[in-house]
Amino acid sequence: MTNSPLTPEFFRDISETANALADAARGTTLPLFRSSGLDIANKLSSGFDPVTEADRAAEQAMRATLAERRPQDAIQGEEFGFTPGTSGYRWVLDPIDGTRAYMAGTPTWGTLIALCSADGPVHGIIDQPFTGERWEGGTAIARHCSPHGNRDLSTRAPRPLSDAILFSTFPEIGTLDERAAFERVSGKVRLTRFGTDCYAYGLLALGQIDLVIEAGLNDYDICAPIAVIEAAGGCVTDWQGGPAHAGGQVVAAANRQILAEALALLA
Amino acid sequence: MTNSPLTPEFFRDISETANALADAARGTTLPLFRSSGLDIANKLSSGFDPVTEADRAAEQAMRATLAERRPQDAIQGEEFGFTPGTSGYRWVLDPIDGTRAYMAGTPTWGTLIALCSADGPVHGIIDQPFTGERWEGGTAIARHCSPHGNRDLSTRAPRPLSDAILFSTFPEIGTLDERAAFERVSGKVRLTRFGTDCYAYGLLALGQIDLVIEAGLNDYDICAPIAVIEAAGGCVTDWQGGPAHAGGQVVAAANRQILAEALALLA
Repeated sequence: MTNSPLTPEFFRDISETANALADAARGTTLPLFRSSGLDIANKLSSGFDPVTEADRAAEQAMRATLAERRPQDAIQGEEFGFTPGTSGYRWVLDPIDGTRAYMAGTPTWGTLIALCSADGPVHGIIDQPFTGERWEGGTAIARHCSPHGNRDLSTRAPRPLSDAILFSTFPEIGTLDERAAFERVSGKVRLTRFGTDCYAYGLLALGQIDLVIEAGLNDYDICAPIAVIEAAGGCVTDWQGGPAHAGGQVVAAANRQILAEALALLA
Repeated sequence: MTNSPLTPEFFRDISETANALADAARGTTLPLFRSSGLDIANKLSSGFDPVTEADRAAEQAMRATLAERRPQDAIQGEEFGFTPGTSGYRWVLDPIDGTRAYMAGTPTWGTLIALCSADGPVHGIIDQPFTGERWEGGTAIARHCSPHGNRDLSTRAPRPLSDAILFSTFPEIGTLDERAAFERVSGKVRLTRFGTDCYAYGLLALGQIDLVIEAGLNDYDICAPIAVIEAAGGCVTDWQGGPAHAGGQVVAAANRQILAEALALLA
């Protein structure tokens, strides 16, 4: 397996493919969003992990698009697992990140699409079909498109932790130790907000907020946000400052300075 | 002071006026949303209660609209207080409910517009300019409009509390006793979500969720949601089952059955 040469044609192809994947997923997620009678199954017999028909159909639609456009790439999907490839690249797909938000009708869920090399994410899209927002980040692009206009992504300049805005999805965070570590940071910031799923990573890339801290993530939850946030000038690590693309405990930060402050408190 | 006769012309006039108010507010809130350099002041010397230029400008725009269209009505606005009228009706205005969401860039804030008689809210709008959603409820209307289409509002049919979805804005809720009461309910439901501000009331009116429980509300936080939710078939009371339009502790429920279950646990 050898990676493709990093030519402008390659970057254009992966950007076009990533956008085609987002369009394909949107075609199944948006019509079912807020429809009655979602066929919600529980993936786990204990706990609450809803999977909707839309989730499965969206991944199938993306897999069909990849089979047509880039059959040489491997695929790692939340719903249907791993499909090997020959190119050295792997698409990491989460058709609906935030299935609880999707169920409840909140437009903070998203479709996450990343292309990874062996070293980690190289290109990513966060797509929110209801608001019509799409974040795209990679080597040659850092862009937010919405019905209200398009703009380049750029994270916030450093500011004191006491002026920072912190997001996470659940106040429970993870284990009791993880919650306590999170609360050491949330006790120092100006504002902590919950309930945003992947949308929080988009707000970070837009320069609206300073930190997102989560635990218990899967690779498909974080690969696309990493590509988008790094392209916007931010940084994403695990709670020890190492690579985050395998999931687990994740800190996404607007800049190195505030990342260091957060890591010191999480340790 | 005498109320206007409850004619179709009266209802049309207040609906048109309420929509004109929402349009006027949108004209100032949307251009400033996610703009850099919001001039955020702290209303309270202790705690964190940001007021943006957009908040003030939006209320001024709504007051100018009322001065032109219905100068006979009183006005109660979050930013500029009470202005008396002669009609027996009072417009209750919150230009930006969810200023923290507005600051952070999350599209869950909204403009709240209610017309109240001496008995409480008779007409209301919840407007979310970024998603383009507008909820309107009153004697002759219960409607949700969005770029994805328009639909009649209707709350959920009764279901067991163990299948219900509960929303609130902050996990802290209010006092420690209020938080404990909330957690007696959240411990029984299928899913609890935070971080939605007035958007949660809109989801309730759309039939997406079952309960919203909050404490420490002002009248301008809840009058418009009451009108919208009651028009959709739901009910809103305080934690003792009494009228909620003065604010304080509020339960909004999809139906009487689940309201009774929530009240029993909150007591």
